[in-house]
Amino acid sequence: MTPFERRTRRAQERLRDAGADALVCAPGRDCQYLSAVESEQSDRLQLLVVPAEGDPTFVVPTLEADSIREATWVDDVRSWDDDTGPGPVLDALLSALSPSRLLLSERLWARFVLDIRERCPAADLGLASDVLAPLRMRKDERERAALRAAGEAADAAMRDVRALGADAVGKSESDLAAFVAERLDAHGGSGTAFDTIVASGPNGADPHHSTGDRVIGAGDPVVLDFGTRVDGYVSDQTRTVVFDGDPDPEFEAVHDVVRAAQAAGVAAVEPGATTDAVDRAAREVIEGAGYGDRFVHRTGHGVGLDVHEAPSVVAGDGTTLEPGVAISVEPGVYLPDRFGVRIEDVVLVTDDGATRLNRTDRGWRC
Amino acid sequence: MTPFERRTRRAQERLRDAGADALVCAPGRDCQYLSAVESEQSDRLQLLVVPAEGDPTFVVPTLEADSIREATWVDDVRSWDDDTGPGPVLDALLSALSPSRLLLSERLWARFVLDIRERCPAADLGLASDVLAPLRMRKDERERAALRAAGEAADAAMRDVRALGADAVGKSESDLAAFVAERLDAHGGSGTAFDTIVASGPNGADPHHSTGDRVIGAGDPVVLDFGTRVDGYVSDQTRTVVFDGDPDPEFEAVHDVVRAAQAAGVAAVEPGATTDAVDRAAREVIEGAGYGDRFVHRTGHGVGLDVHEAPSVVAGDGTTLEPGVAISVEPGVYLPDRFGVRIEDVVLVTDDGATRLNRTDRGWRC
Repeated sequence: MTPFERRTRRAQERLRDAGADALVCAPGRDCQYLSAVESEQSDRLQLLVVPAEGDPTFVVPTLEADSIREATWVDDVRSWDDDTGPGPVLDALLSALSPSRLLLSERLWARFVLDIRERCPAADLGLASDVLAPLRMRKDERERAALRAAGEAADAAMRDVRALGADAVGKSESDLAAFVAERLDAHGGSGTAFDTIVASGPNGADPHHSTGDRVIGAGDPVVLDFGTRVDGYVSDQTRTVVFDGDPDPEFEAVHDVVRAAQAAGVAAVEPGATTDAVDRAAREVIEGAGYGDRFVHRTGHGVGLDVHEAPSVVAGDGTTLEPGVAISVEPGVYLPDRFGVRIEDVVLVTDDGATRLNRTDRGWRC
Repeated sequence: MTPFERRTRRAQERLRDAGADALVCAPGRDCQYLSAVESEQSDRLQLLVVPAEGDPTFVVPTLEADSIREATWVDDVRSWDDDTGPGPVLDALLSALSPSRLLLSERLWARFVLDIRERCPAADLGLASDVLAPLRMRKDERERAALRAAGEAADAAMRDVRALGADAVGKSESDLAAFVAERLDAHGGSGTAFDTIVASGPNGADPHHSTGDRVIGAGDPVVLDFGTRVDGYVSDQTRTVVFDGDPDPEFEAVHDVVRAAQAAGVAAVEPGATTDAVDRAAREVIEGAGYGDRFVHRTGHGVGLDVHEAPSVVAGDGTTLEPGVAISVEPGVYLPDRFGVRIEDVVLVTDDGATRLNRTDRGWRC
């Protein structure tokens, strides 16, 4: 039995426990997790339907049928043509299932949600994440190895960035992002897992700054937030550095606070702890230093096949951490029009504590 | 009034005609079309809500609020923080609206669809495309200029590819795709609009082949399907060429058939014609030549901000073409394990006929 089939069988147990009849997964990470098929949602309907009992079925456009059959352990791949559309295949499948409760993958497009609702007006609709998030959250050995390798590739790229030192001054943010992309691939990563953030000087004060044409100057704090994939699993790390020269007089103190907050957050990660406790541990350090209102986002998020997945490391989430859960811990402080500081590592919960998957220097001097 | 506001006001008229209370748009092309905001859906809820009467509202995570305010004419931008979540802001907005019918953008994620349904259990849910697709389908002067420029960039890149001639033999499909990407940017395009297809030899028989490591050999037919963006609008064109040497003996005849089918499809494009008629015109040529069962996809699709948008050029669609509609016309014939041929241009409906936005050589010899 492949790991993908094993996960599917486990999901079916949970489906039965939840009293639901089937998972309905759009192309995306849920589908990849269960079937090994890596594809993107498009206007041609493609679904993986996993019933509570029996074997799963793919409904796919004929154009994609061969490549999906090659990629997956799922035997039952039913294809539809452009001229008839997916209706007949879908109706046959759903009427055999006659569901009273269907769980949809979180990112299934509204057009398909409404289409399914019309075909099964009696079915209650819920989210597949109720069943799949707890499974996807606990990484197995193979997944942990991929996360570790992705973290190492990102760390190696970060060391190369840091080694630029004064040579980075005069480059644009976009130039530096292109260098990051090249170094991630050179160190065994596969592309960038999300749009690389290179936020220099005042741009760093926007946590979601889009990397642009601004040229990095001496004394600029630069927030570098990037990641890559290995075997489908992502890395996500942030460092805030000054390549050359002297930063804003308040910068060093803020950097110390964020670094201490990040360490406190990481220290709070252990089996049995809750996500709330991790958020609180990091936040209290920043609040204690008087920057509480400048820490404008949650402390972190789960990472795996998705860059952002369960659990959310935020007040009120309340998920209990278990061995195999991987989360980012990434507090930040943002001073508008001046600079920002964020420090982030992915942290993996182990049997008796936690281990950081990013280990490069967290200091700001290059 | 900006063109974005003008479109929004027109959408509101149609909303009232449709008896719906509001459009609910996820980040994506509908949102961009109305607000000028170009962003991607993420796990942090972001919505543009356009009521049938009055002014639109953005609901956005605080992290994105500044950049959205800068990008749009929409004044009412309401932000929510990670610690409270979007619930209170969304509830206030929806309860003021107390909708009986909401139209959702087609790609709004299921998690948000179910969330909205829970907050407005009495509201009937439909698709925003009912109101927006007819508007987005008819391109204005500015949009036509962008489509034209995108087509020219793609044509210039295709000429560069063709000029490789025998030098392309020995390159991998991925190498050639990287060359295409570089040439698209060099000719004023902005990136690739979709994953470039370079499908050589037998790989060409899979219409959605993923560009891979196969090395292009002498005599290989190569399907080249790529596009770029200018001012947000896409190009989408395909040529099938042989860089050097002699192809399969049946190739030339198949290429002639597809070329004739494509010409017939383009000739059928005019104001008042239906998408069905365009599909039929192309398909009849291929059926007449005995390859009907090898033309396994629709004849084309609308292009604009999305690579695939309304109308679908397929039997049964039945949309009547009007001036300003832009569609791809892309028949193909696929012989498994041997080769494929597809020829595609974007065609813009004019006041008295149609004009191709791709004009490079459609022959197969380089």
